[in-house]
Amino acid sequence: MATTDTNKFQAIISHCKEYGFIFPSSEIYDGLQAVYDYGQWGAELKKNIKDYWWKSMTQLQDNIVGIDAAIFMHPTTWKASGHVDGFNDPMIDNKDSKKRYRVDHLIESHTDQLKAEGKEEEAAAIIGAMEKADAAGDLEALKKIIDENRIKCPVSGTANWTDIRQFNLMFSTEFGSTVSSEEENNKVYLRPETAQGIFVNFLNVQKTGRMKIPFGIAQIGKAFRNEIVARQFIFRMREFEQMEMQFFIKPGTQKEWYEYWKQERLKWHLELGVPQTEYRFHDHVKLAHYADAACDIEYNFPMGFKELEGIHSRTDFDLRNHQEYSRKKMQYFDNDINPETGKPIGNYIPYVIETSIGLDRMFLSMVCAAYTEEDLSADGKEDSRVVLKFPAKLAPIKLAVFPLTKKDGLPEIAQEIMARYRADFKCFYEEKDTIGKRYRRMDALGVPFCVTVDHQTKEDNTVTIRHRDSMEQERIPIDRIGELVGKAIK
Amino acid sequence: MATTDTNKFQAIISHCKEYGFIFPSSEIYDGLQAVYDYGQWGAELKKNIKDYWWKSMTQLQDNIVGIDAAIFMHPTTWKASGHVDGFNDPMIDNKDSKKRYRVDHLIESHTDQLKAEGKEEEAAAIIGAMEKADAAGDLEALKKIIDENRIKCPVSGTANWTDIRQFNLMFSTEFGSTVSSEEENNKVYLRPETAQGIFVNFLNVQKTGRMKIPFGIAQIGKAFRNEIVARQFIFRMREFEQMEMQFFIKPGTQKEWYEYWKQERLKWHLELGVPQTEYRFHDHVKLAHYADAACDIEYNFPMGFKELEGIHSRTDFDLRNHQEYSRKKMQYFDNDINPETGKPIGNYIPYVIETSIGLDRMFLSMVCAAYTEEDLSADGKEDSRVVLKFPAKLAPIKLAVFPLTKKDGLPEIAQEIMARYRADFKCFYEEKDTIGKRYRRMDALGVPFCVTVDHQTKEDNTVTIRHRDSMEQERIPIDRIGELVGKAIK
Repeated sequence: MATTDTNKFQAIISHCKEYGFIFPSSEIYDGLQAVYDYGQWGAELKKNIKDYWWKSMTQLQDNIVGIDAAIFMHPTTWKASGHVDGFNDPMIDNKDSKKRYRVDHLIESHTDQLKAEGKEEEAAAIIGAMEKADAAGDLEALKKIIDENRIKCPVSGTANWTDIRQFNLMFSTEFGSTVSSEEENNKVYLRPETAQGIFVNFLNVQKTGRMKIPFGIAQIGKAFRNEIVARQFIFRMREFEQMEMQFFIKPGTQKEWYEYWKQERLKWHLELGVPQTEYRFHDHVKLAHYADAACDIEYNFPMGFKELEGIHSRTDFDLRNHQEYSRKKMQYFDNDINPETGKPIGNYIPYVIETSIGLDRMFLSMVCAAYTEEDLSADGKEDSRVVLKFPAKLAPIKLAVFPLTKKDGLPEIAQEIMARYRADFKCFYEEKDTIGKRYRRMDALGVPFCVTVDHQTKEDNTVTIRHRDSMEQERIPIDRIGELVGKAIK
Repeated sequence: MATTDTNKFQAIISHCKEYGFIFPSSEIYDGLQAVYDYGQWGAELKKNIKDYWWKSMTQLQDNIVGIDAAIFMHPTTWKASGHVDGFNDPMIDNKDSKKRYRVDHLIESHTDQLKAEGKEEEAAAIIGAMEKADAAGDLEALKKIIDENRIKCPVSGTANWTDIRQFNLMFSTEFGSTVSSEEENNKVYLRPETAQGIFVNFLNVQKTGRMKIPFGIAQIGKAFRNEIVARQFIFRMREFEQMEMQFFIKPGTQKEWYEYWKQERLKWHLELGVPQTEYRFHDHVKLAHYADAACDIEYNFPMGFKELEGIHSRTDFDLRNHQEYSRKKMQYFDNDINPETGKPIGNYIPYVIETSIGLDRMFLSMVCAAYTEEDLSADGKEDSRVVLKFPAKLAPIKLAVFPLTKKDGLPEIAQEIMARYRADFKCFYEEKDTIGKRYRRMDALGVPFCVTVDHQTKEDNTVTIRHRDSMEQERIPIDRIGELVGKAIK
């Protein structure tokens, strides 16, 4: 990425920490690689994103319900899904540093270096060879690329490598219900995706909810992947959260539903007000083993266009495999009439369209889109601000309430305003510092509205309301605050 | 528990499954012990409980903010907290069945049997001996109880036992960032409590949020314990969710704040409308190593009064230990004036009052309180219903909308009502079955209001609204639905 974008990304990461959005996990113990904690304002932003998705994908839909399945699942789930056998990354160890690397990351670091030196063609050739070897699962060819290019370990500086091995990305733990001699049976995985929690519950939901195809099941929850290299802040974490919806359909209708959800999901993103140019579709050419069509909605992160959400036509791969492994019929009886036979369509295993969005990536995209450095210099006086221009409905705090001074009864009036509106939306009271400094601080937190109580308020019950993005101020009656904020966050 | 209560509990568990509240996890693979999934209506009820707690503990509080820390934490966290060394249960293995048991559960099964046979005194003596041995950590004395009472394995029927060993209740997994020779360093635990995520972030939140003592940090999140025996449905699970708040205070003020939060938290429960007689305080006599006072709010579950929420005066145990292990000062500078010296009070490690509620237990208490079987027989005609009398604000669905028939434009009017109100609260449309059957089904889901669109609606824009608990019906204008439902869920 270009230097200015790198700088912007670094500035965003610092801002997230300084203003209580994201802290490195267990920072007092020097952190835990690729794990982060959401601070006081990050937790609110994250919750608002979750609520917005949940409402739009369940409450406002006629035929989608939500579930909340456990992280622990029966281990056979992951045999059926293909994760036990197929969810691997080629890895290599440096014998001197004892460090382990994902082979693709190691090679890409090398090609990034080549590109920085202007050797674009050489880099492209190496990437091409890597992708070919990767697609063929040819570990020896991958090793040859590392050897021939004399790629070195960034820690030890040597090229003293082990062979490449496949490394499963699932975390496992042990259930302690039986003794150690039967240990193998107790191995339980932390789910690497939330989708399977929906598939194994397909029949339970369909029957108890009397759902008719087409219908969807939505879920928000944590998933875990043993990513070796921590990179790009919260973009790729070992512990992350997904917002997924599996839409069950009649086989043969997958093309139209795939198109439908592609457009619906893009619309959902655009409704948040970020310019359309910041999003693009990326169609998968190489499809996953379960898919007959797949694309990503990519967002223009500071490090370039990267996956934000995936829309996948998963066929009946998952339900069919669960049927095989569980010996339970994963079928739906469709009593719509087949026009050709005049009889009900009957039993089939539904096909599935999946929409899967990374909550942490969505959070990051919202912070990146919102983060703005503004030069406010005027009349020879230098001034600037950092403002997070969140859509009002996602902002962690909706309204800040300031008394102009700490005396003359102004704090009491400000507290009355707090008491009146805090049950309707998140309010924040602040009496420290000058009003100008308070505005800057609220800008940095992305608060869309600030109201100031001053001496005039005591006379006519009006306050100054200041708009975050335009910085315009207007005088309004206290009674109008709720309506004004309410309209903006609706 | 008495037979009728056992029956009631079994009826509740069945109801939860039949109506999409709770499914056994991975049920198609015959389930996973002590793990459950929340179905389509359970997920909504659980979310409503979370939102209600979050709002009352953060948004409506002047000095409490929320965070969302990761499940993975630096392993030293659990050394500092005492969990690596002290979070153990005595366990014993049967050599014939290869089954492992928690010693206290094994002994309690035996004493339950004795009580059922009327041998109350004998049972009490055994429990007394067990508690004494347990408190002393005397594993040999515990073993002696098992031997002397000839307690047998329920699976093998034999008393062929191993010695008793301590078994740590934390789940562990491995981070894959370095090679296997350094494996020990890669061991990471799944957090057994959410509290430590707050303690390690104490300084980050206090500084970036400019918090002044007294202040609190709240969090909702998953925790994991390797419970050996799955019992009592979702009351004790391997994977569960906590809603915790740690309140940081000046040392010496813990007694008053402990009392304050005891009363506040009980008030919170009572505001949901369940009779006060269903709750009681249980003061801990034997205190945990970190506490100088502790109590539970117990709820009268079908299996008796059991812990629902804990309020603990944790002293400075956690912050002091984190300071020692991390070598980072976990101190707060208090610039309030000490009246004796006339100078700021200065640095100290804050004391902590914790309120910790099990979200799954809260869910279970709400379902148990709501579950009602009513005999509606009248005029010699037998009739009955099962109704979940949830507080309206927690109900998974707020309003059901029925067209009386599927024709004459009634479904269209019903859909207009759906479209008008569904963004404000969760609505549910149903046109199958008779109105009477639809009412029964909505009762079983705990829907507080049903409106029916009939032919009169076309003439005067009124509908029949039916109240769940009283079953009373009244005729109201469509325009009044929102106000009526809105008032009930506020």
